[in-house]
Amino acid sequence: MGKVLIIGAGGVGRVVAYKCAKNSSVFTEIMLASRTKSKCDDIAADIKKDVGISIQTAKVDADVVPELVKLINSFGPDIVINVALPYQDLTIMDACLETKVNYLDTANYEPKEEAKFEYSWQWAYQEKFKAAGLTAVLGCGFDPGATGVFTSYAAKHYFDEIHYLDIVDCNAGDHGKAFATNFNPEINIREVTQEGKFFEDGKWKITKPHEIGKDINYPNIGPMKSYLIYHEELESLVKNFPTMKRARFWMTFSDNYLTHLRVILNIGMGSIEPINYNGMEIVPLQFLKAVLPDPGDLGENYKGETSIGCRVRGIKNGAEKTYYVYNNCKHPDAYRETKAQGVSFTTGVPAMIGAKLVLEGKWGGAGVFNVEQFNPDPFMEEMNKQGLPWHELHDVDLEMD
Amino acid sequence: MGKVLIIGAGGVGRVVAYKCAKNSSVFTEIMLASRTKSKCDDIAADIKKDVGISIQTAKVDADVVPELVKLINSFGPDIVINVALPYQDLTIMDACLETKVNYLDTANYEPKEEAKFEYSWQWAYQEKFKAAGLTAVLGCGFDPGATGVFTSYAAKHYFDEIHYLDIVDCNAGDHGKAFATNFNPEINIREVTQEGKFFEDGKWKITKPHEIGKDINYPNIGPMKSYLIYHEELESLVKNFPTMKRARFWMTFSDNYLTHLRVILNIGMGSIEPINYNGMEIVPLQFLKAVLPDPGDLGENYKGETSIGCRVRGIKNGAEKTYYVYNNCKHPDAYRETKAQGVSFTTGVPAMIGAKLVLEGKWGGAGVFNVEQFNPDPFMEEMNKQGLPWHELHDVDLEMD
Repeated sequence: MGKVLIIGAGGVGRVVAYKCAKNSSVFTEIMLASRTKSKCDDIAADIKKDVGISIQTAKVDADVVPELVKLINSFGPDIVINVALPYQDLTIMDACLETKVNYLDTANYEPKEEAKFEYSWQWAYQEKFKAAGLTAVLGCGFDPGATGVFTSYAAKHYFDEIHYLDIVDCNAGDHGKAFATNFNPEINIREVTQEGKFFEDGKWKITKPHEIGKDINYPNIGPMKSYLIYHEELESLVKNFPTMKRARFWMTFSDNYLTHLRVILNIGMGSIEPINYNGMEIVPLQFLKAVLPDPGDLGENYKGETSIGCRVRGIKNGAEKTYYVYNNCKHPDAYRETKAQGVSFTTGVPAMIGAKLVLEGKWGGAGVFNVEQFNPDPFMEEMNKQGLPWHELHDVDLEMD
Repeated sequence: MGKVLIIGAGGVGRVVAYKCAKNSSVFTEIMLASRTKSKCDDIAADIKKDVGISIQTAKVDADVVPELVKLINSFGPDIVINVALPYQDLTIMDACLETKVNYLDTANYEPKEEAKFEYSWQWAYQEKFKAAGLTAVLGCGFDPGATGVFTSYAAKHYFDEIHYLDIVDCNAGDHGKAFATNFNPEINIREVTQEGKFFEDGKWKITKPHEIGKDINYPNIGPMKSYLIYHEELESLVKNFPTMKRARFWMTFSDNYLTHLRVILNIGMGSIEPINYNGMEIVPLQFLKAVLPDPGDLGENYKGETSIGCRVRGIKNGAEKTYYVYNNCKHPDAYRETKAQGVSFTTGVPAMIGAKLVLEGKWGGAGVFNVEQFNPDPFMEEMNKQGLPWHELHDVDLEMD
């Protein structure tokens, strides 16, 4: 049906490539490219062995538009799945525009020199993609991604108006390391050390990092200490669901994890300001990334599971209603299937699903879209088929004031 | 009376230079040299302003013997005070031998690739210094240094046999930073993250890092949590006082400090194994040093004081006796006098005293010596004059089992 170019060969790229290969009637040709071709080759060899499908690999520096253009032109994909670094969203979008190819990513662009999560830079591409007749799907991992689809599914089927949304993201896994991040440490630490932010009564409210925290009960897991943090899908969801009175995002962090984060900041290793070290400009956080365990290597002994979902309160036919939709994903299951841990798995599978729906014509249109702007039903259907089964609870206590 | 070359322009080098300048009838010419000449110039300018004495400055790479030899030959010192890095002890000793100049340092040599504190490498220079008719004074800071003199003073005046020695090192200061080390972070972290070790019944006993800890009461400070760590003077003291049944070293660490250390190790930033970062071999601990606050900058707002001393138990005239000799040093006093904090001050002043005694002929002899091998009396006298007054308590509860 179509050709896909996947850019980025970390844990998520691995999962996307596996899942595309497992849907080879849709993804008839697959190329995996990254700065380090050997990583792509390793994944390709695993896929050949486990799935029996051959994928192509290539080296590309996603910071450099002409390199991207050259690769895209030579391979001729119908869609590019960008699971490289968020810094590289704009160069890849530029290359897609130049080569007239559809685009999909899992994390919003952020400038390297500032830890700032917002869609403004990518939404600014709306007119360009519209004029080119191309589809750009933004934020199609799990969160953002599945969480946006969950919300639009709730809105479509169960609510006249959504008033309160709490996205709850729990990782109850144990990777057995003293400290490691579940995805790119640089991006992870930038994200979780920023100020908290949530939407209430038409305004964004700021909190200190991890200022607001409480125990939340997760299905099959139990109570876990969860903290209010800012997460990028809140920005598009309050825009696309204007009846929202409040929207928040909660993520679990262990005391041990927070202690490590606090120390990393205290000692200056969380800084994104370069220092001069023996004549070389080095960003401490990037150096720390090189020292920390590779998140891609955590899978093998990763125990436990994740649970991510949306807790929604609103009205239907004049009556108040609550709704909770979620997926639980076991790290060992993810590893058995793709040699990646659950956090990579839950991000990579939705990216493949989004691309599949674009190729099948179920999602589309000219312009730049967040996932909640599309029809949620085929996506929800695919989640059940592709290894991310979801569950829903109606009129339960959402544990949210 | 004599010319002194000080190598090393950190906090300790600053204090040594100040104190030599304040004893200009003994140190008639002073040169301060380091890899970074501008640091020497800054100190020289401060000394000119505060003490009214001009000192010379020079650039030297203390890793390179010919550079050292050239500098020593051109200046012609009577003694070299080495307060550079412990890695550089041997090159500086080699240069002193080649140029026939006396030598003094404050910390034992350790190889860069292994955090190993022992005198073997430097004691191996015994025959060379003896043959050359030169004096090498090892470990003449506070600890090692004053602690060795305290012990020999106790042995000389109050004990027939010393049986139990506990060196207690308390820093009850507050520098107001979330985390900083009081001297070179690289050396500090190597030292405090190693296994604990103490001497008992003729054998060295190993503990896990910070395995043994307890509250110890320090004069004018009160109880502070103190941990048994290995410290280099134990090696020479049990050798030079063979009646010793047990010798231990205790140092205070706050919970916050230990948490930071634990995390630094967990995240791999305490490692001395180089990693390849963008084609450059970088030792994580050395990079961390570049990111952490410069210990030389801690002085200005440093509150509180240090207390370092020896708690001795043994026999005199057949009766058991206890003895506690210590110095307390207030960080603000140290800063007012030298613009350095107390940890630098307590290390630098004894180095100057040792060099003064060598120039005055009160300490000397051909060979390599630890400080407890010299007459302690003139050193103890100088401590009272030079800003490190000591106090003694007889037959008190040493709080040691």
